[in-house]
Amino acid sequence: MAYERSNIRRMTGYTWGEQPKDAGTCKLNTNENPYPPAPGVAAALKDIDAADLRTYPQPTADPLRTKIAEHHKLAKENALITHGGDEALRLAITTFVEPGSPLGCANPSYSLYPVLAGIQNAPQLQAENSADWSLPTDFAQQANAAGARLTCLVNPHAPSGRLMTTDDCARLAAELDGVLLLDEAYADFIDPALGYDSAPLIKAHDNLLILRSFSKGYSLAGLRLGYLIGQEALIEPLLTKTRDSYNIDAISHRLGLAALDDQDHAAETRRRVRAERSRLEDELARRGLQCPPSEANFLLAHVPEDAKLTAKALYEALKARGILVRHFDTPRLADALRISIGTPAQNQRLLQALDDLLDHVSAAR
Amino acid sequence: MAYERSNIRRMTGYTWGEQPKDAGTCKLNTNENPYPPAPGVAAALKDIDAADLRTYPQPTADPLRTKIAEHHKLAKENALITHGGDEALRLAITTFVEPGSPLGCANPSYSLYPVLAGIQNAPQLQAENSADWSLPTDFAQQANAAGARLTCLVNPHAPSGRLMTTDDCARLAAELDGVLLLDEAYADFIDPALGYDSAPLIKAHDNLLILRSFSKGYSLAGLRLGYLIGQEALIEPLLTKTRDSYNIDAISHRLGLAALDDQDHAAETRRRVRAERSRLEDELARRGLQCPPSEANFLLAHVPEDAKLTAKALYEALKARGILVRHFDTPRLADALRISIGTPAQNQRLLQALDDLLDHVSAAR
Repeated sequence: MAYERSNIRRMTGYTWGEQPKDAGTCKLNTNENPYPPAPGVAAALKDIDAADLRTYPQPTADPLRTKIAEHHKLAKENALITHGGDEALRLAITTFVEPGSPLGCANPSYSLYPVLAGIQNAPQLQAENSADWSLPTDFAQQANAAGARLTCLVNPHAPSGRLMTTDDCARLAAELDGVLLLDEAYADFIDPALGYDSAPLIKAHDNLLILRSFSKGYSLAGLRLGYLIGQEALIEPLLTKTRDSYNIDAISHRLGLAALDDQDHAAETRRRVRAERSRLEDELARRGLQCPPSEANFLLAHVPEDAKLTAKALYEALKARGILVRHFDTPRLADALRISIGTPAQNQRLLQALDDLLDHVSAAR
Repeated sequence: MAYERSNIRRMTGYTWGEQPKDAGTCKLNTNENPYPPAPGVAAALKDIDAADLRTYPQPTADPLRTKIAEHHKLAKENALITHGGDEALRLAITTFVEPGSPLGCANPSYSLYPVLAGIQNAPQLQAENSADWSLPTDFAQQANAAGARLTCLVNPHAPSGRLMTTDDCARLAAELDGVLLLDEAYADFIDPALGYDSAPLIKAHDNLLILRSFSKGYSLAGLRLGYLIGQEALIEPLLTKTRDSYNIDAISHRLGLAALDDQDHAAETRRRVRAERSRLEDELARRGLQCPPSEANFLLAHVPEDAKLTAKALYEALKARGILVRHFDTPRLADALRISIGTPAQNQRLLQALDDLLDHVSAAR
């Protein structure tokens, strides 16, 4: 006999990226930062006394909330620490989305959104992105007409890397009747010269939540640490009602503080990723694989129709060579590979494999 | 404007126990193990390389699932690792409880159950415990009549410490139409001579989930690590659908393995807690504070009507002296204090304070 609710029985779970054990794998499939976390994080880890794990952690991770709020020039009450960005998304859906009422999303987007909507027994409004991966101009009207009480948009967009400007974010927040959650999991890789900064929008918009993550920008995917910022009235029910009481363990709390204290290290890893993103985009284009301009730590490389291999076959052939990238077998993405930006050596290994597999003569040879 | 769902707006969040920063506080309020985790845990912590935190953890924590399953003579498919016991409870409610359909509970019980039911917009069947804190004999009939698809029972019971036998657990699982979740957060402190062992019941009962925690029995409350065991068909939707994809961080995973490897240390801490539980129960009784027999790491001490202070006033007076215990201001519990078992020195400090406050002449003086 099946005991789970009927909507749980019907839904499909999230498909996570492969996590191979083989250290020789060139892992460009899950958008991790190719550089290790800051020396300050390693030092903080060595400094933790196991005896301190005996007691419960501070329930709301207040020291980290305070530091994050200061980082964004906000107050502690504007910040909520979460167990990775995924918990932030789940909490927002649990708190704001009534079962049966739609979650606003774009399509394609982060493939976890439909899974979380399915758990809440909520349909999704999946507005199709335009050809350049921007939102349709009537997105807010569509979401409002559908009655969406929460809209989740990843910015920079995944899997294209396209950045929506701060002004566009402000306009959307103003237009939407419900809550707008900007999922900025990749925002640490935006070129600082573009001046993107959504945090100040919080003051003017009582319906805006911004999600950030330590996974990529601080090289701490293994730790599960993220946060939400927003007006206190939006943060408060997540903090005091729907969140698991002790959602941040004592170690993650300490390492999060240490990561924030070592901004120079994180900034340098991001600078290197941006430099390689630019180089890899050029090199892929030279091989016929066009990518939309990306402000994330990945590129969406379109495999041309006349290529020797389809995107799916290329994904498999790369995997056979120990190079993991991501292929999504959906109509809009079937011709593309999502490639995380690796170290120069990893990216070079990918380019050489592409040369071999697609019979191009690389300019790099 | 309030954006949260109306049931979230109406509900009250969980009230967590105080976590004082002052190291001089005698902390007997949140049922932590008074002894530190195993030396093997400290060694594993020192051995973790911060560079490994760069990548995502293994999504289902399979090495730990395997080890836990072996510990209970089950297969990996029978085990799910959770971010503390609280996540296990939340996942069970998300997965099995339809909004509007009741969660089966006893009253009083773990005060998180009604909070989690509130989030799911589910009413609760709160069957009143008998005078000896046992379940009413018609508990399963009440739950079935109410249509409860999930019943959560903490065993040993909180806050009384009363143990339901393995046979009673089997009978309940057989009688209930829905899922029975046995919350064994305190089961590590059951006297081994009683031979309580619910894990083998899983084979015969397709509706039985057993929750365990590393918080108390392994002295790792700061880490947030727990697990569920049950038949694969019960575990599977929680593992693949309702769980956050990377719910166990890389460090907790490693330390959980180390804790399981050092059973002797954990067993010794539990033996000491049981010895002090017995002594403290006697000493409290000698002072007129009767406790029901407890197989958990706490005692529920009833303050007699003719005592100089009420239970609430006693709680406040102890707190003023730096001794924290728990008082629940509800009809059934208003006359009692829930006292976690501390070290012999902590327990002695409590007893001496009681002597001072209640004007008893302690036999220990």
